[in-house]
Amino acid sequence: MSHFAPLQNDTFLRALLREPVEYTPLWLMRQAGRYLPEYRATRARAGSFLGLAQNPDFATEVTLQPLDRYALDAAILFSDILTVPDAMGLGLYFVEGEGPRFERPLRDEKQVQALAVPPMERLQYVFDAVTQIRTTLAGRVPLIGFSGSPWTLACYMVEGGGSDDFRTVKAMLYNRPDLMRHILSVNAATVAAYLNAQIDAGAQAVMIFDTWGGALADGIYQQFSLQYTREVVQALQKEKNGQRIPSIVFTKGGGLWLEEIADIGADAVGLDWTVNLTKARAAVGNRVALQGNLDPTVLFAGPEQIRQEVAKVLDSFGAHGAGSGHVFNLGHGISQFTPPEAVATLVDAVHTMSRPLHKA
Amino acid sequence: MSHFAPLQNDTFLRALLREPVEYTPLWLMRQAGRYLPEYRATRARAGSFLGLAQNPDFATEVTLQPLDRYALDAAILFSDILTVPDAMGLGLYFVEGEGPRFERPLRDEKQVQALAVPPMERLQYVFDAVTQIRTTLAGRVPLIGFSGSPWTLACYMVEGGGSDDFRTVKAMLYNRPDLMRHILSVNAATVAAYLNAQIDAGAQAVMIFDTWGGALADGIYQQFSLQYTREVVQALQKEKNGQRIPSIVFTKGGGLWLEEIADIGADAVGLDWTVNLTKARAAVGNRVALQGNLDPTVLFAGPEQIRQEVAKVLDSFGAHGAGSGHVFNLGHGISQFTPPEAVATLVDAVHTMSRPLHKA
Repeated sequence: MSHFAPLQNDTFLRALLREPVEYTPLWLMRQAGRYLPEYRATRARAGSFLGLAQNPDFATEVTLQPLDRYALDAAILFSDILTVPDAMGLGLYFVEGEGPRFERPLRDEKQVQALAVPPMERLQYVFDAVTQIRTTLAGRVPLIGFSGSPWTLACYMVEGGGSDDFRTVKAMLYNRPDLMRHILSVNAATVAAYLNAQIDAGAQAVMIFDTWGGALADGIYQQFSLQYTREVVQALQKEKNGQRIPSIVFTKGGGLWLEEIADIGADAVGLDWTVNLTKARAAVGNRVALQGNLDPTVLFAGPEQIRQEVAKVLDSFGAHGAGSGHVFNLGHGISQFTPPEAVATLVDAVHTMSRPLHKA
Repeated sequence: MSHFAPLQNDTFLRALLREPVEYTPLWLMRQAGRYLPEYRATRARAGSFLGLAQNPDFATEVTLQPLDRYALDAAILFSDILTVPDAMGLGLYFVEGEGPRFERPLRDEKQVQALAVPPMERLQYVFDAVTQIRTTLAGRVPLIGFSGSPWTLACYMVEGGGSDDFRTVKAMLYNRPDLMRHILSVNAATVAAYLNAQIDAGAQAVMIFDTWGGALADGIYQQFSLQYTREVVQALQKEKNGQRIPSIVFTKGGGLWLEEIADIGADAVGLDWTVNLTKARAAVGNRVALQGNLDPTVLFAGPEQIRQEVAKVLDSFGAHGAGSGHVFNLGHGISQFTPPEAVATLVDAVHTMSRPLHKA
């Protein structure tokens, strides 16, 4: 039995498991973030991004902020995708306005061979945040835990930060596939342990972000990204305290590989806005639920245009009968420049417009 | 009759037209560029990028540089994709290390309504370069002319430069589709006139780069990018002095829309490295030739790995019988950090390994 409060709105979890729902649930990737003035205020009090992400009180505060404004159907842990390599000893830091960096990127064989699954205690601050957020949510909506995929983490670990072309990590992949496979195996085991510990701490669904899978060539993607995400998915606990814990896999730019992604055992697949939902659904059949896929820049348009584009997404998904399995989301993280009132329009549009579709 | 020297190597043109060839021809997007020390030397003499691109002598010099090093099967005009909006009066300039900018981006209705097809005389320096390059080539290989697509040009024209998320141009698209369609119509008419003038000046094939088509949502892409590229393709002269002038359309990130792209009337479709060539060929049938699609970062690997990845691309294309229609290329422009000797390995590998395949 769980010691957490009972869930009052499980629409999101039911949609992921393709069970009947009364309306299409939605949440937004990066919904706790810089577009909200209250987030920027908390961030200022925390002093730095890491100060925010590593403190369970602050993490709880910002995770709940979008839920206080909007009728979102899920909360997602506020954290950084690079907590894992940081726990591996790579030394995460942030350069203001330039994104994440590592002090000790993996560049030579010795560093790669020394890489190992870190003790999960180093990530205790994340698990503490999960428990505190779940407790504070008090059953309003489910809490999503998350991690970067093994390949996406490897990109940062080898490049030492963001990259336009990933030439360092790809050169290693092509020149020394043995070293790359070692990194990816260690990452897969670590990500699985990390997500399972988030589930133990209270996460009610988990999502794997393969942000850079779409940078890989066809053939290479399957071997060096999807294969290791599959290892993670297969090592996840599927149930906790008698509740199913659904998993979502999102590969930005992965539309061409949708059928293969749908086969790795996750409950749902996230889609970016280049994917046609009608075709996607035909391709995956009943294997997985689908999550997505409004272009985040639609939120820079007026209310009427937002409603029109929401209608197009709902329509393109097709019949919303029992167990059709659609979770509404953006096709990528919300932009920091988004006007907060556009999100209110979006949330209302998805709920209002989808309700009659589910009655049919 | 053409007053230019007869063509000695028309393998590239024959492959585009799906005629029999003895080996798979190749050229590289951005083959005249910063990875070559001789390019950097000419660039230094020219004083600036625009000084280089706008001077037919310099443009001729750098266009021919990669041909003097490598047995490439085509030359491509050295120019910038933003010559067209510059001729429209937007005021192109470059910020060192930050890419192109416009002094007068299109931001309000008045600016948009004032946009018109510019007199082609303003682009005479480009046509002069085409003629001079073709003359200097003296028939060694064919010369490709090019332009950005209407949508890709519109991105720069509205954003005022490069962008991570295209939120300004997309906000205009969603909020004022009428204004966006006006820009795209003017761009389509201008690009068609521009490419036809390049053909008159001596270009033996033309390519349209839809670099940012892949940033659009499914449905929007077809209406706001592909539709206007189709207008350009349909307005192109198909023959000059009794020679067919093949056209190539390349949409980065357009793999999901391949069948629709293959239907707009171009002779060939360029593919990035996320596309599976076997599936692509099955999808397009005999409608178009295919160009691509090695990941440019393979050129950061060793010679053995380069040969192996070339073999995979050739193999993935399938049977190379008469009229199969494959032009080898990278899936995107060559990186400025590429070691020049890797290109020598690539060119040799494509020619050597493909020759026996075409005999079969």
